[in-house]
Amino acid sequence: MSLVLLAPDRNMQPWKEALLNIDPNLDVEIWPGVSNSEKVQYVVAWNQPKQVLNSYPNLKAVSSLGAGADHLLKDDSLPEDIPICRVVSPSLVSQMKEYVLNAVLNYQRNTHMYAMQKVKGIWEPHPNKSPEEFTIGIMGLGELGRPTATYLAQLEYRVSGWSKSVKNIENVETYSGKEELESFLTGCCLLICMLPLTEETEGILDLDTFKKLKRPGYLINVARGEHLVEEDLIYALDKEWMEGALLDVFSKEPLPESHAFWNREKIMITPHVSSLTPPEEVAPQIVDNYKRALSGMDLKHKVDREKGY
Amino acid sequence: MSLVLLAPDRNMQPWKEALLNIDPNLDVEIWPGVSNSEKVQYVVAWNQPKQVLNSYPNLKAVSSLGAGADHLLKDDSLPEDIPICRVVSPSLVSQMKEYVLNAVLNYQRNTHMYAMQKVKGIWEPHPNKSPEEFTIGIMGLGELGRPTATYLAQLEYRVSGWSKSVKNIENVETYSGKEELESFLTGCCLLICMLPLTEETEGILDLDTFKKLKRPGYLINVARGEHLVEEDLIYALDKEWMEGALLDVFSKEPLPESHAFWNREKIMITPHVSSLTPPEEVAPQIVDNYKRALSGMDLKHKVDREKGY
Ligand SMILES: NC(=O)c1ccc[n+]([C@@H]2O[C@H](COP(=O)([O-])OP(=O)(O)OC[C@H]3O[C@@H](n4cnc5c(N)ncnc54)[C@H](OP(=O)(O)O)[C@@H]3O)[C@@H](O)[C@H]2O)c1
Ligand SMILES: NC(=O)c1ccc[n+]([C@@H]2O[C@H](COP(=O)([O-])OP(=O)(O)OC[C@H]3O[C@@H](n4cnc5c(N)ncnc54)[C@H](OP(=O)(O)O)[C@@H]3O)[C@@H](O)[C@H]2O)c1
Repeated sequence: MSLVLLAPDRNMQPWKEALLNIDPNLDVEIWPGVSNSEKVQYVVAWNQPKQVLNSYPNLKAVSSLGAGADHLLKDDSLPEDIPICRVVSPSLVSQMKEYVLNAVLNYQRNTHMYAMQKVKGIWEPHPNKSPEEFTIGIMGLGELGRPTATYLAQLEYRVSGWSKSVKNIENVETYSGKEELESFLTGCCLLICMLPLTEETEGILDLDTFKKLKRPGYLINVARGEHLVEEDLIYALDKEWMEGALLDVFSKEPLPESHAFWNREKIMITPHVSSLTPPEEVAPQIVDNYKRALSGMDLKHKVDREKGY
Repeated sequence: MSLVLLAPDRNMQPWKEALLNIDPNLDVEIWPGVSNSEKVQYVVAWNQPKQVLNSYPNLKAVSSLGAGADHLLKDDSLPEDIPICRVVSPSLVSQMKEYVLNAVLNYQRNTHMYAMQKVKGIWEPHPNKSPEEFTIGIMGLGELGRPTATYLAQLEYRVSGWSKSVKNIENVETYSGKEELESFLTGCCLLICMLPLTEETEGILDLDTFKKLKRPGYLINVARGEHLVEEDLIYALDKEWMEGALLDVFSKEPLPESHAFWNREKIMITPHVSSLTPPEEVAPQIVDNYKRALSGMDLKHKVDREKGY
């Protein structure tokens, strides 16, 4: 029996080493170097090619390499009875909190405007935004969104949050479900998307949403590129309903050279770096779930196929 | 008797209003609209032209408009027996803490590199620096430096600080005097200058200093342009002893269009915005010191002419 690391656009050698550090007897292979398909019982996958997951007849379970599992849920070649899990890690959370705090401060202190002015040799001060002047709205209050909301509230920002089920979070104004989406949106101007990508959330960052924000709005998307309707963001920026956006995720990554976002001054781009899974930290839970899968036990951090996350 | 606002490069109307809000009977004039030089007893000054402060024969005291008073100490036309004070305000401190935290996070998360890549259409991730990987060294532990050091330490950064007299600050490793400057510098790689500009501190950010930092070093200067030896920074960046710098202050402001800094990718520029004095907040202390000066009482926040700050 073997565990396969399936992530064509990543260097998986450090992952293999981290897993063998936990248990030197593991049989770990990096795709496409799989010696015997019949032996494969567990796959850890990220942006896997189609028609690979159906080539392992004895597959017991699949894990995402990261916090999101949309790439697995969308993969028709993964048999429906194979359970899916993902990784959850304190470092993913602390990196995300750090990235988001940095993004909020850059919004307050006009960092991207100054960076653009720097390139052009322009000296022109702009007014700062103090924390009392705006409300941060966080979409998604799960493993990443909830601690980020709490962190920002502790730092005395005004924070509201939106999730599927009702939540109660200290110093955070919470909203839930479709019915409360509008009240949530109309109360904030700095919108941060930390939702999983599902049928319900795909395209949720659209003109309807941008129109409802307090003007001018600002968008930070650290979830998935497909949450955003790209042309709607450009339209809202041109109309000045939105003053800017920071995007870390895109429906096609790397963002193609010809993409319109590159030339938009009000859009800031980071190359999917807000929170990266550290192999050493999650290796123990991968090994644990691997052994659970082999012994027929329930997986930890299991993805709910019905809910889609 | 009158109070004169002397700051040619600022709009002083809001200051006049803020002062009159405190005491509507004040006689406040904005330079150069001074009706009678003999009546002038108190001046609030920022980047004042030379040979103005000696034109008020009944001057009792002068206040800086901001936290620094180097522009007054350097002004030969200010008679030596006129006391100088400055303003101290919670908002100056909180703005500075916010600016510095933002700068530290941008250092950790490669924000300026991503901004430059954005302009060029380049998608390329760079490793983050986690807080355990570097020590922040703060030069100057006064009204601004000390609370900033404490704040960063509370956020679990490794912080050291340097001042003239010995300090004891929780979770901050403190150094003092010329004798301990080298030990201070060799222990940190992210250097933040929050010193006042004096004979002793002018040009302190030079090659000698940069050479001693852990490599690669990074400089944040929010104090005064004259602290920095500009060509030494460029030299240290070219040698890769330093990986970058964020400068908010310059010996000539606005930074001239032809200045070499504009074309250096590793230097980020903000137009002297790290901390701006809010007129409403400091108006009460200005009025208070004005009345103290008239009645011959000691000024609050007085500048020590001997020490030079
Ligand atoms: N850019 C990066 O580097 C990076 C790194 C890691 C993760 N991510 C992205 O971040 C996403 C979130 O991760 P996570 O671990 O926090 O996910 P999670 O723990 O599954 O939390 C998801 C949250 O979204 C809410 N939600 C889901 N569907 C919703 C709907 N239709 N309406 C309202 N709320 C809804 C959930 O509500 P309930 O609590 O009521 O279920 C939950 O609060 C991941 O899916 C991934 O796409 C990006
Ligand atoms: N960029 C901006 O927007 C902005 C805004 C406000 C202020 N500033 C600048 O920030 C500077 C600092 O302001 P502040 O209010 O914090 O000043 P401060 O209260 O006077 O504190 C000055 C600190 O520097 C230390 N120091 C002075 N000379 C020294 C020397 N030769 N060696 C070692 N340490 C020395 C002092 O040590 P001791 O404590 O031992 O006396 C003190 O800790 C101002 O002078 C101004 O130039 C810039």
